Amino acid sequence: MKRSHVTNVWDFELELSDERNGGTKPRVVLGVDGGATSTISIVLSTTSPASDPQVIAKAVAGSSNFNSVSEATAKLVLESCMAEALMQACITRADVQAVCLALSGVNSPLDAERFYLWLRGIFPNKGTKCYVCNDAEAALASGTAGRKYGCVLIAGTGTIAYGFNEDGKMARAAGLGPLLGDQGSGHAISSNALIAVLKAHDGRGPPTALTAAIMEKLKLSSPEEIIGWVYADTAWARVASLVPVVKACAKAGDQVAVGILEHAAEELACNVKAVVNTLKLSGHDGSKPFPFVMVGGVLEHEAGWDLCRPLVDRVKQAFPGVQAIRPQVEPAVGAALLAWRQTI
Amino acid sequence: MKRSHVTNVWDFELELSDERNGGTKPRVVLGVDGGATSTISIVLSTTSPASDPQVIAKAVAGSSNFNSVSEATAKLVLESCMAEALMQACITRADVQAVCLALSGVNSPLDAERFYLWLRGIFPNKGTKCYVCNDAEAALASGTAGRKYGCVLIAGTGTIAYGFNEDGKMARAAGLGPLLGDQGSGHAISSNALIAVLKAHDGRGPPTALTAAIMEKLKLSSPEEIIGWVYADTAWARVASLVPVVKACAKAGDQVAVGILEHAAEELACNVKAVVNTLKLSGHDGSKPFPFVMVGGVLEHEAGWDLCRPLVDRVKQAFPGVQAIRPQVEPAVGAALLAWRQTI
Repeated sequence: MKRSHVTNVWDFELELSDERNGGTKPRVVLGVDGGATSTISIVLSTTSPASDPQVIAKAVAGSSNFNSVSEATAKLVLESCMAEALMQACITRADVQAVCLALSGVNSPLDAERFYLWLRGIFPNKGTKCYVCNDAEAALASGTAGRKYGCVLIAGTGTIAYGFNEDGKMARAAGLGPLLGDQGSGHAISSNALIAVLKAHDGRGPPTALTAAIMEKLKLSSPEEIIGWVYADTAWARVASLVPVVKACAKAGDQVAVGILEHAAEELACNVKAVVNTLKLSGHDGSKPFPFVMVGGVLEHEAGWDLCRPLVDRVKQAFPGVQAIRPQVEPAVGAALLAWRQTI
Repeated sequence: MKRSHVTNVWDFELELSDERNGGTKPRVVLGVDGGATSTISIVLSTTSPASDPQVIAKAVAGSSNFNSVSEATAKLVLESCMAEALMQACITRADVQAVCLALSGVNSPLDAERFYLWLRGIFPNKGTKCYVCNDAEAALASGTAGRKYGCVLIAGTGTIAYGFNEDGKMARAAGLGPLLGDQGSGHAISSNALIAVLKAHDGRGPPTALTAAIMEKLKLSSPEEIIGWVYADTAWARVASLVPVVKACAKAGDQVAVGILEHAAEELACNVKAVVNTLKLSGHDGSKPFPFVMVGGVLEHEAGWDLCRPLVDRVKQAFPGVQAIRPQVEPAVGAALLAWRQTI
């Protein structure tokens, strides 16, 4: 297979092979969460099957979303990030039982196949299982101990609801980006707050504490300057950074801010309900239990405001059997757990 | 004054001066509507003061919005477009009584002052009155025979409500672009239609006739391809081109399309009400008459659907004295009428 990447990231393996001659074989899996902001690789030790897998190494790198950087760059980032984690763990590729690449931007079987073939080129050992999926699958797995079952809601800069039923059928809702109205995302919450400030300014809406709070946060002297601020740099994460300000204003009792967050909870619940209904996760009477995993900055309890409470209330009303889960581990560990599930 | 433009656009004046030696002096004004898509110059003859001014020449050029092209390019476009119109009318600059530049992008006194000084350099004759304003002012004037009084609503690709009271006080609402939620604009109506199709597709919303109509219009084979279509080219006018499709579906009875257009009418009415209230145009009891001018593609009766009807109904409910006007002339004529008002 043709290889275009720099291969010296694997030079550390030569020394390891010499050192380990005759020792016991380690049992590890590798998981990668590749996103538009950062890439994280995790090595899990699975030596004692009775206990939970343990994180023994972690490496962090930049974006590996092939839509935001080029595909060639994404592959270089992924390969060096995987090598870095394995080097930390003193493990050669030949000793890896399974690898899971969970990549944002992988939205079709064709995308997955392309990255699978490339990954196979790096891990040619037939004993190594290779698996490529969307990053939402790793987020789900981070709350289900690696099981591909249930619904995950991710709400960070963007938002998507994603899930699998017991037959392996997949469904998704939203996840379309700011230009296609992903309400409930950090970008939408922040945009709605900026719009509310401008509406208060030109008489279309009621006064709001968001005006003073956002002016201070963005160091602007007039609401009109918001227009220049927004169009100067349309990077989505930049606008999305206002979510904590909105939560703080809501906590302090501002009804406009409360309204924006209630609307976000409503829209996020709608996305979750669409996936659960499509997959019939809650059975015929809505009472069947299923895991519902919540991931992302918008859903974190911050500035005294917890968006998960109204969200879970709404989902529970429709599906009383829902099991709401806030994962204790990061999505990259979820990717490693998906890899681990391939080995048992 | 330093001049950076190409001056040979005025060469035609030399021949005219020779020809006209000893003839009667023409009386004309020049109006320019400079937008992000095109620039239009109009020459009005004002020779017989008893009758309405008559259009005697018109020239069309590309964008002269200094935010979308550079300021230097904008000035070149404006100057050659003015020269072209005057050449058609066989008029030299010295014979122009007044010029009005109505420019999109001119949003502050500083912007206006900069273009005014530049315009003065082109029309140095003290007998020529020069005036620079926002393009919304020309749109208002196109419905009020050049009077700067009342409220104008522009709804094309973007939307803005703009007005003046009898004391010359100005107010505006919306006009903030798609990233700051100008609901009711062509961009917003089209985006909401695309979102409705995607919601129907992933189970978040009801089925809609918009799906088949938009797939056909954009030559796509699946709703998922909308995502790629939208992010491939984010030019605002491209998305906004779906408005006639939404109107046709509404006319055929699709409730989702009707809902999108009703929402647009509601939001546009809200923008108008904010301006009218700020300027107290309707007097203390809401019954005082004032002109309300409606301009732009969204407000045109097309595909059997008239958005103005529900809009005017809503405005009339709040302000019974409102005088709704659909101008019979284009905004560039409004700019020329503003110039003409400077001379009488």
